[in-house]
Amino acid sequence: VELALAEYLAVRRAEVADVEPQFANAVDSLVRFVLGGGKRIRPLFAWWGWRGAGGDADGPRAAAVLRAVSALELIQACALVHDDLMDASAVRRGAPTVHVEFAALHHAAGWQGPPERFGLAASVLLGDIALAWADDMLHAAGLAADELARAMRPWQLMRTEMLGGQYLDVLNQAQGNETLGPALRVNRLKTAAYTVERPLHIGAALAGAPEELIAAYRKFGSDLGVAFQLRDDLLGMFGDPAVTGKPAGDDLREGKRTMLMSVGLSRADSLGRQGDADILRAALGDAELDVAEVDRVRDLLVDLGAADQVERWITEYLDNALTALQGADISEPAAGTLAALATAVSRRNR
Amino acid sequence: VELALAEYLAVRRAEVADVEPQFANAVDSLVRFVLGGGKRIRPLFAWWGWRGAGGDADGPRAAAVLRAVSALELIQACALVHDDLMDASAVRRGAPTVHVEFAALHHAAGWQGPPERFGLAASVLLGDIALAWADDMLHAAGLAADELARAMRPWQLMRTEMLGGQYLDVLNQAQGNETLGPALRVNRLKTAAYTVERPLHIGAALAGAPEELIAAYRKFGSDLGVAFQLRDDLLGMFGDPAVTGKPAGDDLREGKRTMLMSVGLSRADSLGRQGDADILRAALGDAELDVAEVDRVRDLLVDLGAADQVERWITEYLDNALTALQGADISEPAAGTLAALATAVSRRNR
Repeated sequence: VELALAEYLAVRRAEVADVEPQFANAVDSLVRFVLGGGKRIRPLFAWWGWRGAGGDADGPRAAAVLRAVSALELIQACALVHDDLMDASAVRRGAPTVHVEFAALHHAAGWQGPPERFGLAASVLLGDIALAWADDMLHAAGLAADELARAMRPWQLMRTEMLGGQYLDVLNQAQGNETLGPALRVNRLKTAAYTVERPLHIGAALAGAPEELIAAYRKFGSDLGVAFQLRDDLLGMFGDPAVTGKPAGDDLREGKRTMLMSVGLSRADSLGRQGDADILRAALGDAELDVAEVDRVRDLLVDLGAADQVERWITEYLDNALTALQGADISEPAAGTLAALATAVSRRNR
Repeated sequence: VELALAEYLAVRRAEVADVEPQFANAVDSLVRFVLGGGKRIRPLFAWWGWRGAGGDADGPRAAAVLRAVSALELIQACALVHDDLMDASAVRRGAPTVHVEFAALHHAAGWQGPPERFGLAASVLLGDIALAWADDMLHAAGLAADELARAMRPWQLMRTEMLGGQYLDVLNQAQGNETLGPALRVNRLKTAAYTVERPLHIGAALAGAPEELIAAYRKFGSDLGVAFQLRDDLLGMFGDPAVTGKPAGDDLREGKRTMLMSVGLSRADSLGRQGDADILRAALGDAELDVAEVDRVRDLLVDLGAADQVERWITEYLDNALTALQGADISEPAAGTLAALATAVSRRNR
């Protein structure tokens, strides 16, 4: 995946340098961002989805399929760059986010106008180019016409689901929704469909898998994706910033309506702990929250049993996912690898 | 084009409604935006580029080609929605811009957080989905494999050029560039390549045109595109807002480094009219400029001969474009239509 991305981006970067050298400098930031980290989880699920549907890692289609699934990382680059702008996040993968990097460049150069406006424009445009190149990379992967035709439908649905999930996330925040339903809905779309379900579906479609296998993958992927997001929520609150690359408490400062906060709030309310509920509500979306206040919320979420509840849900969703996997006709070593991957992403610490 | 867009968007909108009804409400704004106006100039040039290379309007390929070139309007929707956000423009096609519309929705509903942040997020996501759907629409147009393969290269270059031109535009503004060179470079990329040159190239590629015709189209398109942008600059300053759908003086308030302003500044400097130069420089990028101050700048640009100079340039670029057209082997009625289109877009009043 790293190699496929590096090769493709080198070609496009050279093309940009021909078009406009100053834009090439900006594109270098995007290239660094794409190649500078990330768990490569979407290509991983798409690859093993293909293998599990009979794709042969030593066969003649493997190289093209690998390039095609690597293109998922460019969609993810767009999603992260635009998401960080929308959330006003300052740090990603231990480094400044793209809009912050370009605002700093503007500031350091002493250019005209507000640096934030320049950072906004650069991050919008670099996210756009990542999204455009994701499609280009898929189409340039060397897939056969029938492979590509089968992959288009889940590829298209995935982008719509991802953007719909992002919109619903922003809307939930704006509306101040506190109930579990909308938070779970965001997780199903923004994380599960986009991160596990559709990548597996794309891999299966590339291999020409039967409908039953696709259905099993989708059930597995949808439940595992929720477990994945619940782990993300816990890491966002309790993770080690040195390991996650993101400051602890950012979800809280941004006002994210996570299932973790939702269960914390509903427990505080139902236990009549109004003071604690007030603390949680006041913290949610307070951009100025300091470390001590984040600590306070963290302690409360443990004390209210919300963190334990989320851990139990992760186990349940993971178990359901694994059950769906066991019932399906999946080639080895993919079946074992997918089960191991499922456990690993549900238990990860970054 | 209208029908092709309406049909395609109806299908995708229904898919969104299945995924997430609340996102469908947001997508409705995008659909209204796409179907609610615009000059359809990119599909027009692509279509006539195809006709001029031998494409038969009554033949079996015409319907697929028409759908394919209509997809250019979805790229344009992304470009406009994101550009309006980056420029903080409030009005487009006589209506609130997308980010302003969603900020107003947030405000009216009394939701949490700053309305502007919600407007930002909605406009980023709706621009993204327009960009993703543009590719989807091209691939779903029903093109033959060889047609699609030939069109991919100019399609890909066009998006890179458009985004590179947008970045250079923002960079010129930030750096306060006043010289003609960078402004012309932005026009070549952001307008000429994206609006005329590559659409013609795409049409020609769909028809399997020879290299000489493509080269002639590109020369025609590049010069005509500059004339088109110069007309845009004049309309932005002197146009009738009731006809253009945009407030007069917005380019000025946003600090756009147009060739019009560049020539105005250089004439004021070289004529030793320092007071007038100061007025122009102070106005450029002043978001609070009132109507009387815009009038003052307008009068100065006329008095300095800048408006006349830009008119002369439009005539020169148009003449060069028409010369390139005359030397090429283009089927009728396309040759005559392209010449008429060239004159019309250079002389338009909106």
